[in-house]
Amino acid sequence: MGSSSNGINGLTEQLPSPARAAVVDKGVDFANYFCTYAFLYHQKEMLSDRVRMDAYCMSIFKNKHHFKDKTVLDVGTGSGILAIWCAQAGARKVYAVEATKMSEHARQLVKANNLQGIVEVIEGSIEDITLPEKVDVIISEWMGYFLLRESMLDSVICARDRWLKPTGMMYPSHARMWIAPIRSGLGNQRKNDYESSMIEWDNFVDDTHHHYGVNMRVLTDSYRKENEKYYLQTSLWSNLEPDQVVGIPAIVMELDCLTATVDDIRSLNANFSTSISMESAIVAGFAGWFDVHFRGSQSNPAQHEIELSTAPSRNNPTHWGQQVFLSNPSFIVKGGDKITGSFSMTRSVENHRLLNVEFSYHLQKSSGQLLNSTTSRFYID
Amino acid sequence: MGSSSNGINGLTEQLPSPARAAVVDKGVDFANYFCTYAFLYHQKEMLSDRVRMDAYCMSIFKNKHHFKDKTVLDVGTGSGILAIWCAQAGARKVYAVEATKMSEHARQLVKANNLQGIVEVIEGSIEDITLPEKVDVIISEWMGYFLLRESMLDSVICARDRWLKPTGMMYPSHARMWIAPIRSGLGNQRKNDYESSMIEWDNFVDDTHHHYGVNMRVLTDSYRKENEKYYLQTSLWSNLEPDQVVGIPAIVMELDCLTATVDDIRSLNANFSTSISMESAIVAGFAGWFDVHFRGSQSNPAQHEIELSTAPSRNNPTHWGQQVFLSNPSFIVKGGDKITGSFSMTRSVENHRLLNVEFSYHLQKSSGQLLNSTTSRFYID
Repeated sequence: MGSSSNGINGLTEQLPSPARAAVVDKGVDFANYFCTYAFLYHQKEMLSDRVRMDAYCMSIFKNKHHFKDKTVLDVGTGSGILAIWCAQAGARKVYAVEATKMSEHARQLVKANNLQGIVEVIEGSIEDITLPEKVDVIISEWMGYFLLRESMLDSVICARDRWLKPTGMMYPSHARMWIAPIRSGLGNQRKNDYESSMIEWDNFVDDTHHHYGVNMRVLTDSYRKENEKYYLQTSLWSNLEPDQVVGIPAIVMELDCLTATVDDIRSLNANFSTSISMESAIVAGFAGWFDVHFRGSQSNPAQHEIELSTAPSRNNPTHWGQQVFLSNPSFIVKGGDKITGSFSMTRSVENHRLLNVEFSYHLQKSSGQLLNSTTSRFYID
Repeated sequence: MGSSSNGINGLTEQLPSPARAAVVDKGVDFANYFCTYAFLYHQKEMLSDRVRMDAYCMSIFKNKHHFKDKTVLDVGTGSGILAIWCAQAGARKVYAVEATKMSEHARQLVKANNLQGIVEVIEGSIEDITLPEKVDVIISEWMGYFLLRESMLDSVICARDRWLKPTGMMYPSHARMWIAPIRSGLGNQRKNDYESSMIEWDNFVDDTHHHYGVNMRVLTDSYRKENEKYYLQTSLWSNLEPDQVVGIPAIVMELDCLTATVDDIRSLNANFSTSISMESAIVAGFAGWFDVHFRGSQSNPAQHEIELSTAPSRNNPTHWGQQVFLSNPSFIVKGGDKITGSFSMTRSVENHRLLNVEFSYHLQKSSGQLLNSTTSRFYID
């Protein structure tokens, strides 16, 4: 939400000022983003994700020493599930903050589970609300597709800077973003859809000229760009199979949730190099995914470290899936080849919760030969 | 857009004032509504609707006397098609107003068709822009599903009150909303989807309690309401076959575009009575649709009156389809029966471009027997 931090422990005043980065219009943010979270149907989708639920549940209950008699802040509590678990694990007090009317359901759920003495549900933005005290643990399920879509980590960082004790810890404690080259039928499918759409446009232009006397051919370039963006440059959601990953996955970002700043995540840049792990394959593009870890803090580590991974998996898919960035054209690779390049990610100007991605890479054959560089831009919508 | 009128010919000052109905936040309105119209793909969908295109095209070219050497205002010009036709029909000057960046494409199209001397594309809201003169004709394709979804007529009325000469006319000139009882497989389909969803919820509640120790049963009522709203109370889009209409259609609203006010359309109430036109049928609910007419004005009528109808049609479906309001439960009717009741429509508080509908009716058997009244609320999302 564009919050800026005055340091981990200082209170951050949220005074709008023209000199600062534009504050996001709350009404627009609600229309674009928050509103979906007010639906129980959407909450249920997330609550039905076993991998997600197991990871958070185990991270709490296998590390009760982090919660017993402690104070907790749940950022974006939704239905209240994390807050409830923290209370059941022995927390003295849990502040469960939720920006939408889902907070009313969270309150119902807390009461139905007899935890109203411990869990206090607060409706409001974490940037605006006030707590009576700082907390030992901040817990949140803030991750969007490819980790950073939705930019909710900004709000968690704000919460941390405002409300976490110096001795406090974050749940999860760490996060990483991964990419890997993949094979996939999606590449050809999207290309075909794109080409069909351009043929259909051609026919439409002819018909409109013939039937209605208006020549729309001048719009063809713009229509093509719109189509390219939609069919070829917008990342896709998919739950990939592990054997679709054709190169060794590479980390493009790592962060420590205790120290990360919004500037760190506003704009990412990383070099990567991935060796092809199959004898031969046709690379359709790249997949991006993330994992998070629950390690506690250095001074007070977890007894049981838990990992929540959204890597391609046959048995443990998640609702996050992976984000797929299609290459145009696809290209052949062989065992021993390397794909080397750079990855960058920035926020969309129109909507800070959406992302722009750029892959720049070349193929290094096992012979040493370098094939042409490619730079491709993508949109995570 | 909540504009109020000081009379057909007076300029309306748009001064925000707390005493007046809340002015819609422009950023929110863009995020919720305008943004889709900035895509060529969406414009193409509408431009590919032959019934729509034929009606407007014919209304203009078969009534050139309304356009020859006249001034025209096209409200919400989109790609510019109506403005271009008016110019081709002989207009002296056409002001083509468009709120989104689609205006840039309209400008391209005007130039490519050599009409830049006549058509001036203006980017902006009709409520805000200024024209150098008043106009003879206001043309607009403002109709949403069931006529009033999107509430764009407000903007056309504002344009009329600000910019139409006392001798001017509206294209289209008249509009009507129709309803009729229908038979449809959609009724059972939605009911089944609803029931499956509640069974799935039941299982989810059991699983969550069993696996994760949190009892979510208290949310069942809220989940059911959300589900009912989604599956049973939200109107559906459909292109119905004429033989699905089982009763004589009834008009629930008629308006003269030259004299209608925003108050007239903000809240509708009408009684209706429809005789069953089949020997026997199962009524799944009601369909709603509209037609508009191009009649010119009383003092300067059309030479060829054109009608654009969105009634159920085998050969002439439109992209508007009809809106379907499902009865729960469905009920049997026989030839000679009547369905009598009232229809009302108001705007959603959360989003003035969406609508709330209420049907109150009873079945009057041909024997004279009256069967139980039903009152059902619906949402046009």
